[in-house]
Amino acid sequence: MDAPAPGGTDGTKIKRLPERSVSDRSVLHAILDGARVAHVGIVDEQGQPFVLPVACARDGESLLLHGSSASRLFRTLARGIPVCATVTHVDGLVLARSAFESSMNYRSVMALGVAALLEGQDKRHALDIITEHLLPGRQADLRPMRPQEEKATAVARLPLDECSVKVRQGGPDDPPEDLGLAIWAGVLPIQTSFGQPIPDPSMPPGVPIPDYLNDWQ
Amino acid sequence: MDAPAPGGTDGTKIKRLPERSVSDRSVLHAILDGARVAHVGIVDEQGQPFVLPVACARDGESLLLHGSSASRLFRTLARGIPVCATVTHVDGLVLARSAFESSMNYRSVMALGVAALLEGQDKRHALDIITEHLLPGRQADLRPMRPQEEKATAVARLPLDECSVKVRQGGPDDPPEDLGLAIWAGVLPIQTSFGQPIPDPSMPPGVPIPDYLNDWQ
Repeated sequence: MDAPAPGGTDGTKIKRLPERSVSDRSVLHAILDGARVAHVGIVDEQGQPFVLPVACARDGESLLLHGSSASRLFRTLARGIPVCATVTHVDGLVLARSAFESSMNYRSVMALGVAALLEGQDKRHALDIITEHLLPGRQADLRPMRPQEEKATAVARLPLDECSVKVRQGGPDDPPEDLGLAIWAGVLPIQTSFGQPIPDPSMPPGVPIPDYLNDWQ
Repeated sequence: MDAPAPGGTDGTKIKRLPERSVSDRSVLHAILDGARVAHVGIVDEQGQPFVLPVACARDGESLLLHGSSASRLFRTLARGIPVCATVTHVDGLVLARSAFESSMNYRSVMALGVAALLEGQDKRHALDIITEHLLPGRQADLRPMRPQEEKATAVARLPLDECSVKVRQGGPDDPPEDLGLAIWAGVLPIQTSFGQPIPDPSMPPGVPIPDYLNDWQ
């Protein structure tokens, strides 16, 4: 697959296949809004990169990253280092007549910047946004957060100032001389869906499945 | 979600929630074998990390990474720099009685090392493995690769020497005092599946859907 290419002075300028680059801000937002997890890259003091899956939610023109205050990731983010957060949706297999032209349909965002840890009211507001993104409608049902839980939870805000968006969609791009070959070609869509809810056996009897859970499905 | 934590001298030692660490090599293999894309982290000369989605396939105790020879990623890998390749499957939403205990079920592998670019017979063999992984059974149907296509394609091999595997599965881990609350709790599985194949309209008439494509579904 053709990935968003890292750049030089302009870190997120798409160098390869610029026709797959998308500048529409609404596309950027939609890709992030469809994500539960971003892959966040940080670098340690020896120059070793680490890429970690992190729960995420978009808040306007920022990406919120959520985890444990005790984690190495969030203790590292607290140093104000440059990070890269990437979200990718793989939407299908593109079956061309050759391996070379075979590809994947995907939508990907790469965001570069410094992710600032949030505190106080900013943090509580961000936690609400994350809960509403990951579990829409559920917040009112949940037992309220305790102060020690808030302390143990970290939220960082990465501004969406330096982003690249790359999208590949549609059928194979075989060269004309391959189109007459008797090889099945097309796209096999890949879909993500929820399965049947699995109730926790320790629930008291008679707790109904909430409506919002049916809505997610 | 609790991510594999970056380490210090031992880069992939799980520092947080070690009970989610898995040392079974077959689990590592299965997570990679279920992946089409790894998120690969590299660092530029200014210390900026980039995280790129890259097509991948496991070959024994290595992870093969596939892309364009012209891409910044593969030109950067050619320098022999340290990389991190992370694969994550999100398997479900864990709905606890509190936002704090709510989580995701997931399986994740983080592999650190130097990814060497392959050439010649090693590269051709690796390309076959990648095609067989991403499109099992299809290779015999495909128009053979041309020399200029092989040249334009890059494959790198990352040894799976320094890896961490982290898995969260099962229901919520609410503290005992929350179990009596009348809040629906459990797991909402997340599934990935193929949709109906979409034929390329430029196919000659009468090309049947291949059996292997039905097998994937």
